[in-house]
Amino acid sequence: MKAGPESAGLFEYNTSKELLVRLRHGADLVQSITELARSKGVEAGSFTAIGALKSAKLGCYDQRGHEYREIRIDSACELASCTGNVSLKDGEPFAHIHAVVADEAGNTKAGHLLEGIVFAAEVHFRQLEGPKLERKYDDVTGLSLWNAE
Amino acid sequence: MKAGPESAGLFEYNTSKELLVRLRHGADLVQSITELARSKGVEAGSFTAIGALKSAKLGCYDQRGHEYREIRIDSACELASCTGNVSLKDGEPFAHIHAVVADEAGNTKAGHLLEGIVFAAEVHFRQLEGPKLERKYDDVTGLSLWNAE
Amino acid sequence: MKAGPESAGLFEYNTSKELLVRLRHGADLVQSITELARSKGVEAGSFTAIGALKSAKLGCYDQRGHEYREIRIDSACELASCTGNVSLKDGEPFAHIHAVVADEAGNTKAGHLLEGIVFAAEVHFRQLEGPKLERKYDDVTGLSLWNAE
Repeated sequence: MKAGPESAGLFEYNTSKELLVRLRHGADLVQSITELARSKGVEAGSFTAIGALKSAKLGCYDQRGHEYREIRIDSACELASCTGNVSLKDGEPFAHIHAVVADEAGNTKAGHLLEGIVFAAEVHFRQLEGPKLERKYDDVTGLSLWNAE
Repeated sequence: MKAGPESAGLFEYNTSKELLVRLRHGADLVQSITELARSKGVEAGSFTAIGALKSAKLGCYDQRGHEYREIRIDSACELASCTGNVSLKDGEPFAHIHAVVADEAGNTKAGHLLEGIVFAAEVHFRQLEGPKLERKYDDVTGLSLWNAE
Repeated sequence: MKAGPESAGLFEYNTSKELLVRLRHGADLVQSITELARSKGVEAGSFTAIGALKSAKLGCYDQRGHEYREIRIDSACELASCTGNVSLKDGEPFAHIHAVVADEAGNTKAGHLLEGIVFAAEVHFRQLEGPKLERKYDDVTGLSLWNAE
């Protein structure tokens, strides 16, 4: 880790393996990524995904109140964009995921992905090898962020 | 391939080459990616792209009726997000691509990219080396998905 | 560089390092990426980011008038998707970034990211090793694009 003017924490990795993964129909995307990381012993990683969801829960973080507001999508939608990373929180693999979903007219909702029930989903996951990446509580934002110390 | 509780199919790769590609003005993004994969002999890959399109056709999959509904974008738009992968379908490279596009007010449409006529587009494509990745018809979804057997 | 029917310019790289970076609270995402590239000596790279912004300026390129129209987001938003690349422009690292942002109802705006004031942001940056990638003015689009000659 080195923090410079350009960042509050910079962690260097080598690529270990690249995984292409088809998620299970009916599974939760967030749990599936977490289980994938656990089963492969991944402590740092990054991924993208595309597919379709049966339903989703998105979050928007209240930057003043320091809590997530939930947005429920109770119908089928395309997973138009999904980007996430895996690091450690309390010693366990933790997935941080954002997504854009779209309905049958192409209209979108987006935010922090709290839950996404998979209709079909294809993940490109990059396992990274290098320093431990631990989330710690950050006073300024109220979030658990990568620890620069 | 190993299927565990976390997935319905998991395929491990090494990175072969990373390509930065400027697509042709006036070309179709979907065809360009397919031709790129064919010309480089890519059987598995993953990419992101950004740029601007002259027009686009997006699809939303009807999860009950098992067919795509088409959403036409007949005007210029930013390609705000574009994520895709390449695998084999009937022995040929096949590109699966999702996108978010935005108009001059920043308003968005998103979905499965059926066609995108390039104004300007920059692609980061990762060639992957490892097991063959074949799409096969899946009864549950009506889609051609990565075959776990 | 080789230009074929599939592209107007194709540049091959090896992965050098993969960086996971926490950006500074209050910094501009565009400047932070540019400074990151400069400080690490990166001449070609690609990245994704997720997080939350305090405010943002998005652009939509007028494909006829050849200028960006600005869309201001003056309130807190989720950075639902962010994809970009780094190459050289006038000999200096230049970041080209597109983003999708979402408000507390999950409603989105998207486009070319001109400025994004960071609340919290996590970047996965891939340093690439290979040919120099220079942007040059392109008459057809009015944009500075990767030079295929």
